[in-house]
Amino acid sequence: MKVDVLIVGAGPAGLMAGAWMARTGVKTLIIDQKPCRTQSGHADGIESRTLEILDSFGIGEGVWRDSNRTIELSLWYQQQGVLQREAVMQNCNPGLSRYQECTLGQGKIEQRLLDLIHAHDCVEVQWNTSPVDLRVNIPGEYRIEMQIQTVQEVEIKTIHAKYLLGCDGAHSWVRERLGLRLEGDKMDEHWGVFDAIPITDFPDIRKRCIVRSPVGHLMVIPREARLVRCYVQLDCRTAAEFKKNYHADILVKLVATILQPYRFEASQLEWSTIYTVGQRLCQTLSMHNRVFLAGDAIHTHSPKAGQGMNVSMQDTFNLGWKLAAVLKGQASARILRTYEVERLAVAVRLVEFDKRMVQAVCGRTLNAHTRNSILQEENSSASGLTARYCPSLLTVPRGDLAANLTVGMRFPSTPVFCQSDARPWHLQQLLQSTGAWHLLVFGGNLSAVSQMKRVERLAAAVADHHLGILSAYLIHCASRQEVDLMDLPALFRPFDASHGYDYWKVFADRQPSVSSHGPGEAYRFYGVGEEGCVVLLRPDQHVSFIGSLEDINSIVVIFTSIGWNDRDS
Amino acid sequence: MKVDVLIVGAGPAGLMAGAWMARTGVKTLIIDQKPCRTQSGHADGIESRTLEILDSFGIGEGVWRDSNRTIELSLWYQQQGVLQREAVMQNCNPGLSRYQECTLGQGKIEQRLLDLIHAHDCVEVQWNTSPVDLRVNIPGEYRIEMQIQTVQEVEIKTIHAKYLLGCDGAHSWVRERLGLRLEGDKMDEHWGVFDAIPITDFPDIRKRCIVRSPVGHLMVIPREARLVRCYVQLDCRTAAEFKKNYHADILVKLVATILQPYRFEASQLEWSTIYTVGQRLCQTLSMHNRVFLAGDAIHTHSPKAGQGMNVSMQDTFNLGWKLAAVLKGQASARILRTYEVERLAVAVRLVEFDKRMVQAVCGRTLNAHTRNSILQEENSSASGLTARYCPSLLTVPRGDLAANLTVGMRFPSTPVFCQSDARPWHLQQLLQSTGAWHLLVFGGNLSAVSQMKRVERLAAAVADHHLGILSAYLIHCASRQEVDLMDLPALFRPFDASHGYDYWKVFADRQPSVSSHGPGEAYRFYGVGEEGCVVLLRPDQHVSFIGSLEDINSIVVIFTSIGWNDRDS
Repeated sequence: MKVDVLIVGAGPAGLMAGAWMARTGVKTLIIDQKPCRTQSGHADGIESRTLEILDSFGIGEGVWRDSNRTIELSLWYQQQGVLQREAVMQNCNPGLSRYQECTLGQGKIEQRLLDLIHAHDCVEVQWNTSPVDLRVNIPGEYRIEMQIQTVQEVEIKTIHAKYLLGCDGAHSWVRERLGLRLEGDKMDEHWGVFDAIPITDFPDIRKRCIVRSPVGHLMVIPREARLVRCYVQLDCRTAAEFKKNYHADILVKLVATILQPYRFEASQLEWSTIYTVGQRLCQTLSMHNRVFLAGDAIHTHSPKAGQGMNVSMQDTFNLGWKLAAVLKGQASARILRTYEVERLAVAVRLVEFDKRMVQAVCGRTLNAHTRNSILQEENSSASGLTARYCPSLLTVPRGDLAANLTVGMRFPSTPVFCQSDARPWHLQQLLQSTGAWHLLVFGGNLSAVSQMKRVERLAAAVADHHLGILSAYLIHCASRQEVDLMDLPALFRPFDASHGYDYWKVFADRQPSVSSHGPGEAYRFYGVGEEGCVVLLRPDQHVSFIGSLEDINSIVVIFTSIGWNDRDS
Repeated sequence: MKVDVLIVGAGPAGLMAGAWMARTGVKTLIIDQKPCRTQSGHADGIESRTLEILDSFGIGEGVWRDSNRTIELSLWYQQQGVLQREAVMQNCNPGLSRYQECTLGQGKIEQRLLDLIHAHDCVEVQWNTSPVDLRVNIPGEYRIEMQIQTVQEVEIKTIHAKYLLGCDGAHSWVRERLGLRLEGDKMDEHWGVFDAIPITDFPDIRKRCIVRSPVGHLMVIPREARLVRCYVQLDCRTAAEFKKNYHADILVKLVATILQPYRFEASQLEWSTIYTVGQRLCQTLSMHNRVFLAGDAIHTHSPKAGQGMNVSMQDTFNLGWKLAAVLKGQASARILRTYEVERLAVAVRLVEFDKRMVQAVCGRTLNAHTRNSILQEENSSASGLTARYCPSLLTVPRGDLAANLTVGMRFPSTPVFCQSDARPWHLQQLLQSTGAWHLLVFGGNLSAVSQMKRVERLAAAVADHHLGILSAYLIHCASRQEVDLMDLPALFRPFDASHGYDYWKVFADRQPSVSSHGPGEAYRFYGVGEEGCVVLLRPDQHVSFIGSLEDINSIVVIFTSIGWNDRDS
């Protein structure tokens, strides 16, 4: 069997890669040794950036609706036998994203990704299947050869693939086979975990809680459908006892002891396990530019901040569109090298952050100020919103025409208003993950003739250079009443003989009822002035380039440098 | 075959009745002579109140997501051969509802209602089936006997039912059979209608438009999925010509003529028809308190304001819960008499409004001020938000403890914040259509001991009187930090041995980050003071009673007067 991409592991990282392949039409096989998706337990924290990404595949709203919001963080401690509330803090950072942190069982997110994948024919998911042998970098077009075997059959099948993704978790078979290792410390600290419906009068059970107690520390994570997850610190004796038969009663009793004098029992216990804290990293994310590792295969850490599933999906969200572009002959394989550079930096920050986070939760000496600043960091930088990819052939820093945007970072969102029908859109809602690059033209005040001329010249330049891959949007700061869609360049109102004009490419930067012009709400949000600018976004919504309306040549240079060959246009 | 409720007509009115029956578990048969739901065309306007109602059945968000928003209304006129824009107005009234007016084909709304109905076993929908004979008020428990016949079979089947609903449209078989008639004028004015994807450079094609022209008036209604609906006034000759072969080309050409000098062609023409303007009404909505008419069977009018489907669904939204309560032995059949009183008044207002609306669109002499005030009326009272049911055994006006609420009107919505987890909810989101009455306890500032005592006495009174049908919520205006859920009466934290406490019954009236007390945002919205009040809502969200925290006896009197017998409690 021949496929373009072979993915080992159908967890969040593997399925996010699969989502890209499904959306871009790349022939892909995903194998997983499990019989089906995750049924209970495992990861459950969803950061706002992850919701933005899921929304770009059309599945964010459903996840958001089904999830539990964790808006507050409550800190408790036990001193001289008395359990006391120390503080209630905000567990989110409103304004950074249109979403906020929430919780939902990993299996439900996998299901949404599977639904998306199954809606396309090009990606196949094969359960009960493990890799048994691998050759990489063999000559020819299909440089990967993998033998796979299903649980049911003795027969071994050979898969030929152009690219291989190892999304097979902390004990990654692919990584081991490549001779790579996770490196770092494994701390001698054990934590038990369980998901259950709690029967309790503990007043903060529906808040995220950190309870520091001499018996052991406790973290409470409220979840969807009345569930609550508890993480409880175990001494070596209790850890060993639990491991004997994995009976969660030990964990539940420990939580009940910590939460005294409140009542705590577990009803409908769904899942439990034990883990040992450790922050480990694999420094090599790709080999021969043909095999790529992602997710837990390259970074493991404590689940304290609910980061794991997020960073894993964000890994392959970074990789997927690049692979698709190369496979479709649109870009040179050179761009794949940016994956390691961009995501290794994130992985390094992740494990460093996790060490501080573990200190914040477990440390006995940490002062409140330091702890709070770490918790604050979790709400901003650790959420994936502030990942900043370093300069490369994909991200070209330059100029300051959009003071509040940073090249390399994800494009933040604010409402804009459709020129044609006044409907408000969060600008990010338009930036769907299709594989297309996005060209956001901040055209300025179009009621000034000179400014309109600049936009017309820009549109002509885009047409001249056949930049068909670009999905172009115009955001102006003229009074909406003074702009007529039909006066604008055809770039911003594409015409199709059977569907007519596309009336949803041009937006005003302020409420329809406001008739003033000059920089309005959206322009101020992005720090764009009356003279406007162009913002080039990669297919993953990260800012690639910011330039003046005359800077189309710089964009052409970027596409040339990545070997762009837009066969579709 | 025996059923509790037999519904003739599976359009919006019949299916809304079916939704109630499905949710409350009442055995129901819906028959319709059509082979399946509406596939294209017909009604397409959805008012904000209808979205609120659909949301109370869990299907509002989906309709809202799929719909097209009609935020602006553009007025054009042709004078001396020149087409000119006269004004652009707001086509909505933000703040009255959490939704706004939108458009979506009737068939897509029917599909959502069918999905809801099919998720329950108790309601069956039988297509291709017509009534052929009817006897009403026969002795026994099943006082309705109807013969029905399917298209495929010669055989006639007899259905015995306790109640019959005639939701079978303007030419209602049920109404005719009862000897009732629609009365009123049929104006000698013809309009053609079609749905198509327009190929046009008319700049306001994605706004709702009224174009006044000597050739004929035109209304443009932008729709979902690039569709646009056009209503065009026809002279008698053109109307006759169209009726010859129902070829929509005539209509499209007429629109193209009106919109000159703009280009207008129709691509993918989905549907077309012709109708004659007339406002007609059936003054009798029920017979023997056993047969009820709803929707177009009792009111027909022009589609100018997109009201028809809305009022039809609102008719049976009013009736459905009453029928279910009577059938479950919870209430006396007396309450069914309120249906005619409450909905006839709405129907009368509807046809009167439609006459003014037709004048506003077609009249040649109307001044701009009068026209605008009618269009304004459409955005408020006509949207169903201001329907005010007159005093009856279900609606008992009294006092002024909630200055911005009106007994008989639907309960408006504003955000409140969950005591347990700080999550914001639009209060209306909690008021799901289950058949339960809602008791909203505005408990005031609970950090004052005297106020807490009042709430405790109220909860004790509710318990004493076994008002188990009530779904109770507490909205307080204390600082959220000073309230502990577990200190509150059990009424507001129901306990279940396997699901624990219900942590989602108590709400604060302001943002979690604000720590002040005294009337906050929600209290001010409803006009409730620090002393609080109780607001009793019917299952259809209309305010039944407003009283002090000591007024539980008045609520007991209401339930006694409707013969309440809560077998569930």
